[in-house]
Amino acid sequence: MHAQQMPQNAATTVNGVDVTALAETLDAIRQQPQLGAFQFRASNTWLGGGLNRSTIDGFHGAGQEQARPKPFSFSADEPPVLLGGDKAANPVEFVLHALAACLTTTMVYHAASRGIAIKTVSSELEGDIDIRGFTGLSDQVRKGYHHVRVKLRVESDAPAEQLVELAKFSPVYDIVSNSLPVEVTVETHR
Amino acid sequence: MHAQQMPQNAATTVNGVDVTALAETLDAIRQQPQLGAFQFRASNTWLGGGLNRSTIDGFHGAGQEQARPKPFSFSADEPPVLLGGDKAANPVEFVLHALAACLTTTMVYHAASRGIAIKTVSSELEGDIDIRGFTGLSDQVRKGYHHVRVKLRVESDAPAEQLVELAKFSPVYDIVSNSLPVEVTVETHR
Repeated sequence: MHAQQMPQNAATTVNGVDVTALAETLDAIRQQPQLGAFQFRASNTWLGGGLNRSTIDGFHGAGQEQARPKPFSFSADEPPVLLGGDKAANPVEFVLHALAACLTTTMVYHAASRGIAIKTVSSELEGDIDIRGFTGLSDQVRKGYHHVRVKLRVESDAPAEQLVELAKFSPVYDIVSNSLPVEVTVETHR
Repeated sequence: MHAQQMPQNAATTVNGVDVTALAETLDAIRQQPQLGAFQFRASNTWLGGGLNRSTIDGFHGAGQEQARPKPFSFSADEPPVLLGGDKAANPVEFVLHALAACLTTTMVYHAASRGIAIKTVSSELEGDIDIRGFTGLSDQVRKGYHHVRVKLRVESDAPAEQLVELAKFSPVYDIVSNSLPVEVTVETHR
């Protein structure tokens, strides 16, 4: 029997997540906690006005540098009412994308590791912002969203309360809902 | 002389931003503060495992519903080491994109409104995360990034300190660095 024909341990997949690999990953981090340290990175270039473009490539994780087959790249712009050319979603809209994506993936992964089947997930998000903060017209008004609402519709037998609890393991939910030290430095040249 | 040939008030553009329109926008919000109330939206659909897709379309702002010529759409996924198919950047990487884009646009707009010329901007971002929080392996470790660093390189005559100050009007900087109420609800069906 050739190696290629050897029966493999069947991957047990729940919600499209390989829960055998998931359990192995968790075991590995339990034994070597430093494997849990990840660093993600982005670079961005301004293209004029409200338009700019980010590139996302390799990262550090699971104890080593992790390469991507090719970098991901996407723009951000502003709509005309915010003086842009509307060539891409704007930065605060990308926050909603990140939040939706992260709550969904987190809920799905945690459900998978508990054997909870999920058939479909969709979500709607709203973020309220008063641009008197951003524009500097008022220092009484915060600059970012003052409220964000996420409604997830999930096809599953699990109780809604449990699914909310699982979704809230989400890193982006933590990043957005809690404070976080962000160090911003500028280096100028002429 | 046909209307089409009438000389128009020349748009005064600084950093690619129409500062005449910017000043008019600020005046309008000063006179009618309710014009500053914006609501951005996203919807997301799970595609299996770590893969999902968001759509960003219209929003509310400047006192009315604002349509887009066509919706923007982008996916999120996870790399193989996080059990995904690596078809797109992951949610926490999109946070870095949103942050880079917002700091850049905010600095450029605020500089434009002050007559400060900026020639080029590029940035590098790093976000540190320990996935023992996300995975639930430790409740002593936060789930999201614990530190984010942003290095902006700016070609300008303005002092770096002033540019940092302008960049920090950024809504996404506020969203990420400060806490914010995020309401998550789940509705289940079978």
